[in-house]
Amino acid sequence: MDDAKGLALAIEEAKIGYQEGGVPIGAALIAADGRVLGRGHNMRVQNGNPILHGETSCLQNAGRLPSSAYQGSTMYTTLSPCDMCTGACLLYGVARVVVGENKTFLGGEAYLKQRGVEVVVLDSAECKDLMDKFIAEKPEIWNEDIGVEERVYSKEKH
Amino acid sequence: MDDAKGLALAIEEAKIGYQEGGVPIGAALIAADGRVLGRGHNMRVQNGNPILHGETSCLQNAGRLPSSAYQGSTMYTTLSPCDMCTGACLLYGVARVVVGENKTFLGGEAYLKQRGVEVVVLDSAECKDLMDKFIAEKPEIWNEDIGVEERVYSKEKH
Ligand SMILES: [Ca+2]
Ligand SMILES: [Ca+2]
Ligand SMILES: [Zn+2]
Ligand SMILES: [Zn+2]
Repeated sequence: MDDAKGLALAIEEAKIGYQEGGVPIGAALIAADGRVLGRGHNMRVQNGNPILHGETSCLQNAGRLPSSAYQGSTMYTTLSPCDMCTGACLLYGVARVVVGENKTFLGGEAYLKQRGVEVVVLDSAECKDLMDKFIAEKPEIWNEDIGVEERVYSKEKH
Repeated sequence: MDDAKGLALAIEEAKIGYQEGGVPIGAALIAADGRVLGRGHNMRVQNGNPILHGETSCLQNAGRLPSSAYQGSTMYTTLSPCDMCTGACLLYGVARVVVGENKTFLGGEAYLKQRGVEVVVLDSAECKDLMDKFIAEKPEIWNEDIGVEERVYSKEKH
């Protein structure tokens, strides 16, 4: 699958998340042969669930698969993967991680490369704009999602 | 909380998983003040869910928490954490990871230490015996759970 098409699926998921009032991060897992194995978006707010980020939600929705299904697969994600999602991609041997943008948050890209995973950053303005809008509206939810206490994206002081 | 008591909670969870026919790995997350924030066990078989390992299941069951709740916390797990669970502990800033055993599987212990997390391995025969029994019974489920295709714990050749 073309990377722009793969990312477009992830962006669709992120937009669904935004419409649900959640953290607008989405992901899609595409097999080596181009089939869509799964799609998903962050469900922290919707389900009160701290482990359902875009990528993990996508892996959950893909269901229980033999390890061969992940061989040569690509994880498309609208935002640079956090440590948990980085580790989830490593566990299942995802071959490539294609990132919408990494300006809002820079996750485990270096570690993925160190472990032999190809990382591509597409610098998508659409992904960045969606996060900018969300963080301006709900900075405290965003900080909770990335495991930090300070409202680094707001001007508030504790 | 005493480390033996914390591990005992994780072992209780692992045993529940075994009784359910699942991968017998359990975890418990204990706050800095000794309160139990959550407990959980691997749910791959029970829910057909590839992201619910012991530690992530425990984090899910603990629910949505402010990041301060994880400060100084200890994750007790019956088996050395895989890459995903290693990353989940890093994301939320778990301070210590106490491992029942790492002979069946050696996960991200070195990376956790590198990132400043204290790692303690208790070398529990009870944890190891439970995994030995499970792997002898269901080697293919175990390999699927750790993302490998070959039945490394069986004598079968593909
Ligand atoms: Ca997220
Ligand atoms: Ca597991
Ligand atoms: Zn994540
Ligand atoms: Zn794990």
